Amino acid sequence: MIELFTWTTPNGEKPIIMLEECELPYELRLLDISTGKQKESDFLAINPNGRIPAIRDTETGQRVFESGAILIHLAEKSGRLLAKTGPDQAEALSWTFFQAGGTGPMIGQVHYFRNAKERSDFAIRRFETESRRLLGVLDAHLKDREWLAGDYSIADVMNWSWAVSGLKGLEARGDFPNLSAWADRVGARPAVRRALDKLQSAKSALPAS
Amino acid sequence: MIELFTWTTPNGEKPIIMLEECELPYELRLLDISTGKQKESDFLAINPNGRIPAIRDTETGQRVFESGAILIHLAEKSGRLLAKTGPDQAEALSWTFFQAGGTGPMIGQVHYFRNAKERSDFAIRRFETESRRLLGVLDAHLKDREWLAGDYSIADVMNWSWAVSGLKGLEARGDFPNLSAWADRVGARPAVRRALDKLQSAKSALPAS
Repeated sequence: MIELFTWTTPNGEKPIIMLEECELPYELRLLDISTGKQKESDFLAINPNGRIPAIRDTETGQRVFESGAILIHLAEKSGRLLAKTGPDQAEALSWTFFQAGGTGPMIGQVHYFRNAKERSDFAIRRFETESRRLLGVLDAHLKDREWLAGDYSIADVMNWSWAVSGLKGLEARGDFPNLSAWADRVGARPAVRRALDKLQSAKSALPAS
Repeated sequence: MIELFTWTTPNGEKPIIMLEECELPYELRLLDISTGKQKESDFLAINPNGRIPAIRDTETGQRVFESGAILIHLAEKSGRLLAKTGPDQAEALSWTFFQAGGTGPMIGQVHYFRNAKERSDFAIRRFETESRRLLGVLDAHLKDREWLAGDYSIADVMNWSWAVSGLKGLEARGDFPNLSAWADRVGARPAVRRALDKLQSAKSALPAS
């Protein structure tokens, strides 16, 4: 059984979507990051970086942290959503890392600086500009494609939640029609709906803190 | 044959180190990023994000972009530096993505804001603090370990150049002795020396622009 430690953030959505897509059994362990639980020693044994998401295989004790690593691990475990060799695998890995080092940190900084206790218009503009550029790269790539890398793959699961966050936060849906249509296609998938519903239900069921 | 498009930056060093470690034949194509060549259409066909590094397999025409994707691709091609299953694979993938989404973008922002045309002490402090925290995570993990994930692996290749950049830029070697000793171990490897020498020689041989 897989234990999934996560929360209702863009990075936190990816592995639960992947688990639902791959139909792997799992137990959801919500870690309310506003309480700082992800910095406590129990969880640091699972992710020494003190961040959600992370998983632990209760049979082997194996941990995996960082959403991209979790998606590749689950793809191999299930034999789903990642070609084993060839162009589709290389493209899926490329777009998976594009998200990890690109839209994730850049859109994350937009949110951070917009809400920071000190105002820096220069920093806000920098990250808005770079985030918009990255969304544009995705939009151009999706011009004649249904999915990012051949068939629906971990590249789509990886990119979706941050693309949605970026399109909304930058009010950019009209500027990136291919990306917006792709985001709607991913968002309409039954496994994605199930994953987000389960995450929200589990959050609602938590005792008020 | 593999064509490697790269430059003398931390991200640019990773794939040439990997190619030397795996003893795969390659041709080095330097792309001086100060000239903007990485934004021209020839290269955008290899990496639509307009960033080095990227590779192309001249036999299959297959492209791979993003350093993490390149390392995984080359590990599979060569059968080196990444366990095929099990705990060592999961750990290596976790620490590979830790770098892609962590030390890479955060230390990159330290450099950016220190040299930016508008001064933001708040932004500089934010990225220095976060970079230092991430180096501390690596340092703690390396307390009783020779390498990041079992045997020497893509996790070490992935993390090395940005760790070196961070230790230097933040003047932090004394604060992170385990990380510094590991950085010296990686840096002393013959394949790493060869890779950096070839990169510098190729750069020196370029016609003055």
